Amino acid sequence: MEKENYYKHCVSLLNERGVSIDDIVQCSIYLQAKYKNNLSEEYYFDAVNSVLNKREVQFAIMTGIVLDKLAEAQAIPDKYLQECLVNDEPLYGTDEVLAYSICNLYGSIALTNFGYIDRKKYGIIKRLNNDKHQCNTFLDDIIGAIAAAAASNIAHNKSVLSKKD
Amino acid sequence: MEKENYYKHCVSLLNERGVSIDDIVQCSIYLQAKYKNNLSEEYYFDAVNSVLNKREVQFAIMTGIVLDKLAEAQAIPDKYLQECLVNDEPLYGTDEVLAYSICNLYGSIALTNFGYIDRKKYGIIKRLNNDKHQCNTFLDDIIGAIAAAAASNIAHNKSVLSKKD
Amino acid sequence: MEKENYYKHCVSLLNERGVSIDDIVQCSIYLQAKYKNNLSEEYYFDAVNSVLNKREVQFAIMTGIVLDKLAEAQAIPDKYLQECLVNDEPLYGTDEVLAYSICNLYGSIALTNFGYIDRKKYGIIKRLNNDKHQCNTFLDDIIGAIAAAAASNIAHNKSVLSKKD
Amino acid sequence: MEKENYYKHCVSLLNERGVSIDDIVQCSIYLQAKYKNNLSEEYYFDAVNSVLNKREVQFAIMTGIVLDKLAEAQAIPDKYLQECLVNDEPLYGTDEVLAYSICNLYGSIALTNFGYIDRKKYGIIKRLNNDKHQCNTFLDDIIGAIAAAAASNIAHNKSVLSKKD
Repeated sequence: MEKENYYKHCVSLLNERGVSIDDIVQCSIYLQAKYKNNLSEEYYFDAVNSVLNKREVQFAIMTGIVLDKLAEAQAIPDKYLQECLVNDEPLYGTDEVLAYSICNLYGSIALTNFGYIDRKKYGIIKRLNNDKHQCNTFLDDIIGAIAAAAASNIAHNKSVLSKKD
Repeated sequence: MEKENYYKHCVSLLNERGVSIDDIVQCSIYLQAKYKNNLSEEYYFDAVNSVLNKREVQFAIMTGIVLDKLAEAQAIPDKYLQECLVNDEPLYGTDEVLAYSICNLYGSIALTNFGYIDRKKYGIIKRLNNDKHQCNTFLDDIIGAIAAAAASNIAHNKSVLSKKD
Repeated sequence: MEKENYYKHCVSLLNERGVSIDDIVQCSIYLQAKYKNNLSEEYYFDAVNSVLNKREVQFAIMTGIVLDKLAEAQAIPDKYLQECLVNDEPLYGTDEVLAYSICNLYGSIALTNFGYIDRKKYGIIKRLNNDKHQCNTFLDDIIGAIAAAAASNIAHNKSVLSKKD
Repeated sequence: MEKENYYKHCVSLLNERGVSIDDIVQCSIYLQAKYKNNLSEEYYFDAVNSVLNKREVQFAIMTGIVLDKLAEAQAIPDKYLQECLVNDEPLYGTDEVLAYSICNLYGSIALTNFGYIDRKKYGIIKRLNNDKHQCNTFLDDIIGAIAAAAASNIAHNKSVLSKKD
């Protein structure tokens, strides 16, 4: 399938799980806030969309959401894994592993951004984390990673702009 | 659950999917062969077992095998992901992402070992890859990663021994 | 050279650059504080030492400190890199790359711990970062990574203990 | 400095160390050969150049070559590290760590490509590895990583093209 179609598929999966692109944009703005860069929301929106257009990101979203949904439906065919996923077991780290596969595509700044927002649990990440009706073990980390990747992308591009101005 | 119990669970999952610890040992021996180190099979066996005792490795095994089994049963609740997994779609990389989470625990030598055995498809990895009856999209990479991690572990320990001799 | 000797060499390099093992212990305690685990400082001290005994960690320390020292002495034979290192140029990410090579050995928890302490700049990390007399471009990240790795190591081991108690 | 200038600087550093862009192109073609894609050399050339335009790649090149040059001049201010670098000590892995920071930007296919070419030592990588007059501890891995990243980039783009044809 073409990347454009995977993009649409992933955006609708995210919406279905309660996440809008604007929710991710707000996390990216939060991560960049200290740099006072006065960029428009559209600028962040474009950065988030460019992350969502990468195939590795799309596969991480699809795989993570499938695992969340199956855990929620008690349909994981491994009782130990089922238990880890519904309890968001602190030592279970495969959710962060998928998140890092997104961050890695955007370099080391994305990784530190992720570590920060993952501990601060800002905005949608907090809502996902506190949600009692839905299993978001993978989703909260994936959203944090997309926001971190977009913020890193902006950090790299802004620098070039500011040098040219 | 304690690590010891997860270990037993993972070994029995691997057996159920057609992989013995000896199969992994043979891959590790293949990776170390060029160093002519004359180590016994028991030495390799211990190295593979120590990899299988790490919690991150156990979670990667459990998560990967669950995805393989669900794909095989046509039970992935996402038609695009279902298709990628049964076809082992070349651009789908989340299987390698889980494999790398194993290798990373053993440093950079483990990563190059994995890249090599993944292209050479030695022993059990080839059998898993050619298997028509079972979906092994995740399993072949996970086995390669465990063998690569064990070989890297041996490379580090052997060096100390040879310096002491 | 044997790992034990590299360990001594690295501890003396850290001391020479103004970092004691206790400084790193305090960062690990900070990272684990929210878990209220009542572990003794000795416990953290052992965890930090076990990180410092890994060869990949030792090589990251040695390589990073060499680059810091050369930058400080204006002895980097590349004027662009010299400038990046003395200014701790925000987009230069090779320092974080070395830090991640330490964290990766301890799994995904170590990576998020690092991202957090890197933004919070606690204790010795803040002192290194504000130091006007010494170039610490690599050192602050390496210290953060060692503390993050030790905290992750404790998180994994404590869990086993609490299950057994 | 702007990315365009860093690009020129890095290409001239590579030339000075005996590596042309065409040498890297040949490694990428070798990695993609089994896919019989009939792409022109220009296509590979563009892919290699796009890798060389990424800032994280430029910093890895600059840092690695500085360490190689200093080792060659016996100017590493740490006798243990000096020895590791001139001997390309097998357990020293910081060279691969820098290489992986390049591969990670291009996803999991780049990492397996790197592991393969690093063991096969094709073309310029073999020449660098056998060079008696120059220390190439970092350079051979960085070149392998750039070739692996470019090949991965092509694998992703070709797939889209073939679907559109």
